[in-house]
Amino acid sequence: MAASTASRLSPPRPTASSPYPRPPPRLSRFSSLRAAKLEAVLSIGTHVIPHPRKVETGGEDAFFVGGDGGGVFAIADGVSGWAEKNVNPALFSREVMANSSTFLKDEEASNDPQILLMKAHAATSSIGSATVIIAMLEKTGTLKIASVGDCGLKVIRKGQVMFSTYPQEHYFDCPYQISSEAIGQTYQDALVCTVNLMEGDMIVSGSDGFFDNIFDQEILAVISESPGIDEAAKALAELARKHSVDVRFDSPYSIEARSRGFDVPWWKKLLGAKLTGGKMDDITVIVAQVKTVAVPDDEGRGVEQEKRGEQVTVAATASAEQNG
Amino acid sequence: MAASTASRLSPPRPTASSPYPRPPPRLSRFSSLRAAKLEAVLSIGTHVIPHPRKVETGGEDAFFVGGDGGGVFAIADGVSGWAEKNVNPALFSREVMANSSTFLKDEEASNDPQILLMKAHAATSSIGSATVIIAMLEKTGTLKIASVGDCGLKVIRKGQVMFSTYPQEHYFDCPYQISSEAIGQTYQDALVCTVNLMEGDMIVSGSDGFFDNIFDQEILAVISESPGIDEAAKALAELARKHSVDVRFDSPYSIEARSRGFDVPWWKKLLGAKLTGGKMDDITVIVAQVKTVAVPDDEGRGVEQEKRGEQVTVAATASAEQNG
Repeated sequence: MAASTASRLSPPRPTASSPYPRPPPRLSRFSSLRAAKLEAVLSIGTHVIPHPRKVETGGEDAFFVGGDGGGVFAIADGVSGWAEKNVNPALFSREVMANSSTFLKDEEASNDPQILLMKAHAATSSIGSATVIIAMLEKTGTLKIASVGDCGLKVIRKGQVMFSTYPQEHYFDCPYQISSEAIGQTYQDALVCTVNLMEGDMIVSGSDGFFDNIFDQEILAVISESPGIDEAAKALAELARKHSVDVRFDSPYSIEARSRGFDVPWWKKLLGAKLTGGKMDDITVIVAQVKTVAVPDDEGRGVEQEKRGEQVTVAATASAEQNG
Repeated sequence: MAASTASRLSPPRPTASSPYPRPPPRLSRFSSLRAAKLEAVLSIGTHVIPHPRKVETGGEDAFFVGGDGGGVFAIADGVSGWAEKNVNPALFSREVMANSSTFLKDEEASNDPQILLMKAHAATSSIGSATVIIAMLEKTGTLKIASVGDCGLKVIRKGQVMFSTYPQEHYFDCPYQISSEAIGQTYQDALVCTVNLMEGDMIVSGSDGFFDNIFDQEILAVISESPGIDEAAKALAELARKHSVDVRFDSPYSIEARSRGFDVPWWKKLLGAKLTGGKMDDITVIVAQVKTVAVPDDEGRGVEQEKRGEQVTVAATASAEQNG
């Protein structure tokens, strides 16, 4: 088969009739749900596995789940280089997440992840730096995202990745990061984007220690095989952890490293070797599923709790210590 | 070097001082520009190269650039499978683009790419189907995107890809597509997202015939070496075209094909061969640069044309015939 001879396929065509009548205009599936008094909420599962050498201290990732209806989550990954300066890299990431939780009470910040990032960062007094991603789901189904660095977020719909953030970095393995120092990035450097979600969409978010050790096809397979979001988060984290300590696994991290010119010494190359291996790191995974809840009136108050499913999200800050 | 021993780096730290004073709150770089009476506009360059066997007919891609201030562009890629049913696949894509141009006069459609897609599709009477991407830049710097299928859009900031759409498909090489038939997709199946842009950001959008034949690092290199957007669009299209007819080039398309289980016959594999090659297809490239224009008053009227640079964007529909 020569790739260049392929031509694109149209799906089976049942009839050769004229254009079919189309449904009346709707802004989006959630706009129509809103008209029917339905609102979008998230059910969220999380799992954290610290770096193998940081199990006792819980690692340097921190995360946060909160918001009315569980519509907000965030991950901060403390930059490990600070340990060389006798600074605990976990303090900064944990404080940023704790401050993010606090500022959710602020009306402006509670509706804009970039503003929340700005306020949480400004209120942080710890020395250090961190990559951060914050995501907020509006009741209409729009997910708002602000990200500095290489935490990631993917949206899965009908078994395929249909949206993904991209990492920002200064150079290989040195991500954009908010910092206690003037040289760092701020909310102004964030990637700010939105994506319109539909009922049933799955969101998979994580620190770079997750995405550097797992491929999209593996994420899709685990999601499809998991009975629930908690099981999915745990299985995803454990698969990434397994790859991270496998020196023969050709991980997304090692593929990227080779593409940037890193490799084994020349004499090993002559013997047929190449740079492989996972990346040992803290691994944080958040899996969220978009659901709808019925609201009894136009005010949007009094959400019927029982329709949210078994997983009711609660405001909480957490670090790797809690489930490492 | 063992990949798993790497630890993330923090950038050089000039002082060990306490957190530096941060700038006053700003929503985004364009929000601040708006306060200073600056608005975001696009300068747009385009280039189309038809499939080598479709040069005489101009191919089946169509595109459209328009909107006040040149803030709207779109690409439609006619699905070639219709030729087997004696339908010219170019008619549908060209009509969708022409209708998109017409409906930009509709206030609702001119502010929402998903609505524009809905109205342009509903008004199309040709038989056929197409993948479509529509992008609109708001004056505040927010780029709104609606995409059905595997046309793509990437945002480049400071020399790196910081945003990218993902293709949607039924199975390998069969993308989501709006259609004259009921079995096709509609605006309701579109990926709908936004990304906040900054002055200087570059947008690279194209049909799958472009992105299947070029890697991100090549796009970044061409963009950085090109003196302007017209030259960049031309150079990108020509590089993709060169790869598309190179049976030995290990293209994004052939890598994806192998990952889906396609390859050369087993006896060729035994001889060390593998499936390689570009994908011969129509190639459409749109390169847009985000600029700012000063407006004289709060009304946002009377944009100073001379500040837009040499490239003034105009409303136009085009097909491959125009510059093939």
